[in-house]
Amino acid sequence: MGKPKNAISPTREENYPEWYQQVVKAADMAENTPVRGCMVIKPWGYGIWENIRDALDVMFKETGHKNAYFPLFIPKSFLQREAEHVDGFAKECAVVTHSRLEADEAGILQPAGKLDEPLIVRPTSETIIGELFARWVQSYRDLPLLINQWANVVRWEMRPRLFLRTAEFLWQEGHTVHATAREAVEETELMLRTYADFSENWLAMPVLRGEKTESERFPGAESTLCIEAMMQDRKALQAGTSHFLGQNFSKACGIKFQGVEGKEEFGWTTSWGVSTRLIGGMIMTHADDDGLIVPPKVSPTHAVILPVTPKEDSREQVLDACHALARELRDKSFAGAPIRVDIDDRDLRGGEKYWQWVKKGIPLTIEIGPRDLEKGSVFVGRRDLGAQREPMSRDDLLANIPELLDQIQQTLFSRALAFRDEHTREIDNKEELYSYFTPENKSKPEIHGGFAWVHWDRDPKWEEALKNDLKVTVRCIPENGGDPGVCIFSGNPSPGRVVLAKSY
Amino acid sequence: MGKPKNAISPTREENYPEWYQQVVKAADMAENTPVRGCMVIKPWGYGIWENIRDALDVMFKETGHKNAYFPLFIPKSFLQREAEHVDGFAKECAVVTHSRLEADEAGILQPAGKLDEPLIVRPTSETIIGELFARWVQSYRDLPLLINQWANVVRWEMRPRLFLRTAEFLWQEGHTVHATAREAVEETELMLRTYADFSENWLAMPVLRGEKTESERFPGAESTLCIEAMMQDRKALQAGTSHFLGQNFSKACGIKFQGVEGKEEFGWTTSWGVSTRLIGGMIMTHADDDGLIVPPKVSPTHAVILPVTPKEDSREQVLDACHALARELRDKSFAGAPIRVDIDDRDLRGGEKYWQWVKKGIPLTIEIGPRDLEKGSVFVGRRDLGAQREPMSRDDLLANIPELLDQIQQTLFSRALAFRDEHTREIDNKEELYSYFTPENKSKPEIHGGFAWVHWDRDPKWEEALKNDLKVTVRCIPENGGDPGVCIFSGNPSPGRVVLAKSY
Repeated sequence: MGKPKNAISPTREENYPEWYQQVVKAADMAENTPVRGCMVIKPWGYGIWENIRDALDVMFKETGHKNAYFPLFIPKSFLQREAEHVDGFAKECAVVTHSRLEADEAGILQPAGKLDEPLIVRPTSETIIGELFARWVQSYRDLPLLINQWANVVRWEMRPRLFLRTAEFLWQEGHTVHATAREAVEETELMLRTYADFSENWLAMPVLRGEKTESERFPGAESTLCIEAMMQDRKALQAGTSHFLGQNFSKACGIKFQGVEGKEEFGWTTSWGVSTRLIGGMIMTHADDDGLIVPPKVSPTHAVILPVTPKEDSREQVLDACHALARELRDKSFAGAPIRVDIDDRDLRGGEKYWQWVKKGIPLTIEIGPRDLEKGSVFVGRRDLGAQREPMSRDDLLANIPELLDQIQQTLFSRALAFRDEHTREIDNKEELYSYFTPENKSKPEIHGGFAWVHWDRDPKWEEALKNDLKVTVRCIPENGGDPGVCIFSGNPSPGRVVLAKSY
Repeated sequence: MGKPKNAISPTREENYPEWYQQVVKAADMAENTPVRGCMVIKPWGYGIWENIRDALDVMFKETGHKNAYFPLFIPKSFLQREAEHVDGFAKECAVVTHSRLEADEAGILQPAGKLDEPLIVRPTSETIIGELFARWVQSYRDLPLLINQWANVVRWEMRPRLFLRTAEFLWQEGHTVHATAREAVEETELMLRTYADFSENWLAMPVLRGEKTESERFPGAESTLCIEAMMQDRKALQAGTSHFLGQNFSKACGIKFQGVEGKEEFGWTTSWGVSTRLIGGMIMTHADDDGLIVPPKVSPTHAVILPVTPKEDSREQVLDACHALARELRDKSFAGAPIRVDIDDRDLRGGEKYWQWVKKGIPLTIEIGPRDLEKGSVFVGRRDLGAQREPMSRDDLLANIPELLDQIQQTLFSRALAFRDEHTREIDNKEELYSYFTPENKSKPEIHGGFAWVHWDRDPKWEEALKNDLKVTVRCIPENGGDPGVCIFSGNPSPGRVVLAKSY
């Protein structure tokens, strides 16, 4: 069977941003809505989010966190309690000013019932959660307080893109209070490792762990740790952040506790979050010119069985065989859960149906026709190996499906890691750096650059220059930045390499 | 060991509404916040919600529904598309009018970036979901479209009460489109049965199933089905609703499809929802004057082990035994999931600790001290049997814990059903009805009344009179209203009995 032309047009090479939109559309994951910047997450996209949420939730609970739910609205005065924080979010927030609609003289409904104080739809919840933590924390015995919230948040985005940057998005935000700065720092590090573990082992997305420079810190944080992944256009995607907030928010919100020796002290707080943006990262790490590829561990369905029923008289028999196989497959387990199998018996041409599943990125397709019944075989397609399909005995499939899914998971990770390695280099002079990040033909900016590990003396003026000249930023000061060296901009000493890239 | 006085003050008898608040507080489930009408759901309350959500989610998926996520905001013009619908919600909605905050001349942050069209924070999502369904539905092949959303919604409540009536609440809203009216009606009935099944079998809360009268219908619905439960003050709580929307919203939103014969038709839609209000219903069905009682199936923890360590030299041994028992208990399962066990080794007086768990309503407490180790016994408290504790052999506990939890679940249901039966009567004349619903001493309105099954000729004027005279409403026209009879108000024919009660 010859491979048709690519299912996604344009290809990554031809127009990467447009390819991304088309992949999301072809997989039927999400759409834009008439509400500016707000997307609808359709069942296939939401199913992936449910798997992400459930896996992370287990990790959070295993590390002692409990879930709670806090108000959607934040009074304006609360947001203003931390000066840097409000500066960071005031420019992009949804403001509720009225509590009802009322017909005016012309009979047109207008906002009415003006609120005494405007409410902000939470862009993040440090200040409202801080207010409540201040009630809950009285003594060192109440610490650490380890809380997580799954919620929607709103940040008014000027240039929205499905999953990557939307006005409303779904996320989790962890918020903790500790008795000492050291414990709070350890918490931020623990959660960063949790995020990295999840990204690599569930999304098959390799990430660098490191710290943000001052200019990229969360508004109000003392330090921001992050994980950074490389997309297939070689840009970086910040996939999760973990903030050490020092005593900034505990002072702003009055989170005080009586210490072991009776003295009243301010708590040390952290916050950390990942969002539906992870799905954007997953797409741009794995999808190809035939559409989405979902890592098995987070795929809503692991395998779809496609009955091939050319003749009416064998149709029933084929369908029965499909259902029998599905039942047996569902008794197997992968990644701690039963294998998720669907049967797609819609009345559609076989090729069309098969390609719909390819575009959805399902890990395995299993076709069964009348002849397969005789031979005890099935026809298996592995999405990570492209659109080719191979015969396999039914028994082998049943015996090996967990391993098969695991192989797909591993292949996706290895391939992404190899891609990142291929497009990562240590650069030791400024000209090479500038040329690395400059497309050869400016009028047609092809995919270029990657991650550059360079020595930098930490002077913010070079960071500013990079942003202006190349649209390149310091993605992170990595945990493994290596030995001290010489700054490629100033010739001054550098304590270690940092990672530069263009980014989302 | 003598029973102390009630842990909750006031008792149900003394002051029912205040008792409710104190139960919620003593169980540490939720609190009011400085954001008017918005509560924070604390870990114990949220854990119950997670169990409710997960159990219902399985039921929705088993009946063919898929989850998706739609925008938080609804443009004002969308809400206005269905006239009754906007009338129903305009009086209590949060209106977003601006997209940022900006400092005025005095340096005070003010709403800025006025929106061209105000956005309403969803009070329910028929109109925005309808807009998207109109895109997705083209042909009869696309039907039925069966979607559910887990989300937060906002309705500006003037008299908020934790869980029962809050400005923001968590819920699920199902939205479906069908090719025929009959299929849509069947869907509303199926989901009503699903809600009743869940309420009775998971929350141990008996419910009546029936239909609302016209005056109590969802704004924009053709008919509204409901489940109604009896609280311990004998008032009714509407615990879930399922609406047949006819073609009202499909016409308002343009949900059209090409029928089998090629003709374009409007779809028939439904919507149905339950919310965190279920937790309020659960509390008022089971809690007693010692605090909350959580039905085992939805309890965040089934059993807590309380180490009794009077002497330092046996402390370690006792703790080891507690951990060993916890491990063995967690290997057992109840209601399809591993048994959830906590060990509470906080440094607190034993009595205080024990009573904290009683007030949280945990199904089982298990105390273990040095002497129990010698005897191979434990000291078990069943919350449904009050605050008494009995010795039990460790082996018996391990062998019987699933059955024990099941017994508690059954006892709670039977008790609630007996309570409802006790306070339900058929009433066949108007005087008796008025006296049934009138407290003996108006200045001190003790708990009174209940469910009255009466014949009514369906003339709305009697409904109106009941509301004005007694604050009593028709809770539902029950599925099992029995034979025709004579209206107790007019003497005219009645097609069957309806259920009257005061309500939340």
